[in-house]
Amino acid sequence: MGFRIAIIGSGAVGGYYGGKLAAAESDVHFLMRGDLETIKRNGLHIHGPAEQVELRTINCYNSSAQIGPCDLVLIALKATANHALVDLVPPLLHECTMLLTLQNGLGNEEFLAKSFGAERVLGGLCFVCLRRISRTEIQRYDYGDIVLGEYRRAAQPRTHEVAAQFRRAGIRCCVTDDLLLERWRKLVWNIPFNGLSILAGGLDTAAMLADEALGASALALMEEVVAAANACGHALGHDAIEEQMRRTATMGSYKPSTLLDWEAGRDLEIEAIWGEPLRRARVAGAQTPRLEIVYALLKALVTGAKSA
Amino acid sequence: MGFRIAIIGSGAVGGYYGGKLAAAESDVHFLMRGDLETIKRNGLHIHGPAEQVELRTINCYNSSAQIGPCDLVLIALKATANHALVDLVPPLLHECTMLLTLQNGLGNEEFLAKSFGAERVLGGLCFVCLRRISRTEIQRYDYGDIVLGEYRRAAQPRTHEVAAQFRRAGIRCCVTDDLLLERWRKLVWNIPFNGLSILAGGLDTAAMLADEALGASALALMEEVVAAANACGHALGHDAIEEQMRRTATMGSYKPSTLLDWEAGRDLEIEAIWGEPLRRARVAGAQTPRLEIVYALLKALVTGAKSA
Repeated sequence: MGFRIAIIGSGAVGGYYGGKLAAAESDVHFLMRGDLETIKRNGLHIHGPAEQVELRTINCYNSSAQIGPCDLVLIALKATANHALVDLVPPLLHECTMLLTLQNGLGNEEFLAKSFGAERVLGGLCFVCLRRISRTEIQRYDYGDIVLGEYRRAAQPRTHEVAAQFRRAGIRCCVTDDLLLERWRKLVWNIPFNGLSILAGGLDTAAMLADEALGASALALMEEVVAAANACGHALGHDAIEEQMRRTATMGSYKPSTLLDWEAGRDLEIEAIWGEPLRRARVAGAQTPRLEIVYALLKALVTGAKSA
Repeated sequence: MGFRIAIIGSGAVGGYYGGKLAAAESDVHFLMRGDLETIKRNGLHIHGPAEQVELRTINCYNSSAQIGPCDLVLIALKATANHALVDLVPPLLHECTMLLTLQNGLGNEEFLAKSFGAERVLGGLCFVCLRRISRTEIQRYDYGDIVLGEYRRAAQPRTHEVAAQFRRAGIRCCVTDDLLLERWRKLVWNIPFNGLSILAGGLDTAAMLADEALGASALALMEEVVAAANACGHALGHDAIEEQMRRTATMGSYKPSTLLDWEAGRDLEIEAIWGEPLRRARVAGAQTPRLEIVYALLKALVTGAKSA
């Protein structure tokens, strides 16, 4: 009996990692809504540097009851749609089903733990530049790595097994004993670049770095995030900033996913990426004036756009 | 021989104060460009609470040479157009001509002093909610007061004479011995409300105050401005914040002038309102993280809009 994997959320992240796993002949089952018929008919195509994946036939379904119990559920929904998981997940569960959230920001593991039991929950950080360029095509621009960990405990044998599944599919994957530390490390990038790109009127990474004042603001925001992580008890080194700046410099003209969402009129993960980190920083007594104003502006922008 | 007044810049501020002075039979001469013929034909109309000014005939000109020497030149151009003053002002000067800038922010008196001599320069702060609703109509929503002072010196007899001119025209006007202190006091309002209104996607004052996180950010920005003013040697009390919050609460749904400019695609006074205060705060060693990020975002937004 194979290792059954369900993918919930078939945007760029779900499509890419699910597609790679399927291409490596893992037993993958996609839960889809709007694009189900199109993808059934045309397949799913992944293009990347030295990478070409053509999936002609895909297991996809419009209800999780049709999928049934799985060993691993990969959750790549927008965090703003988490409430839907309460109905979507239960048909996928057997006693030992693992729930792996690949979502951004803070609070997603907590939501899954509260809803389905903490022992099921793993989290993954995706360091990848992706864009869905059509309903059936995903473009990978850069990177692709996943950092995988358990919710509130060190890595377990199963964590390494899941990592091995990803590696078998050609995805670089490493395992961490401190998932939250890695989440903060990723926020060092997402908080400045996803936020400023929207507030500055739609700038990509190259344009942000080329603007001296904006680049300085991004750096200062990164410092705030590192300080907040440390105040929250995660020993995130200052080198996280240099690492992220180095990554960013090689991205070229990359539009952060939140900017793409904003431009397409999709929901933004304001609470997961900015709100929850800000609240945790505050409780821990960290000073985060820039994060505070970026959060307030993004929230007001989204609220205004919704009521418009 | 009367007291000759020239008005440079016939947007809402120049039109309102010039119009009020003209209606009180001061000897007022408007320098105009695009709207000259329309205003010559149709006059200038000011509407406000308990205020109705109908100027059927107006002295307006399309060159300052046609106006000739004046006793007072009221400068209400956008600060971004200051370079034009180098040509516009000289024909208006006699030996004792006073140059009164009613522009926003910091750096305008300095520009006039450098270009035409410090002894000519006065500055005025307009506390007024205005909007030009057509080429010939100005709507005043609230307030109207001017605070008047000399550039880098205490009030002189002439300062009081100019104030008397305004009062004769029904404009509340008081004189200050510390113009820069008053400029910082006004920035306590302009820096947060003009900036956040744009960055939050076009919110008026009522919407900003109704948004808890944004209201808190506005307040925190005000604290930064007060701290910066004090670091720069101006004893601005904390009560300036409460005073501005009180004013704002009675404004209703008012769109700050910079937001109106942004929505109309006009130039924004980014350097005068945010850039120059930030630079002075930095030199004085004040911590202004929120001002820094607001400035960077506004600048990037404007740069992007121009290149689009």
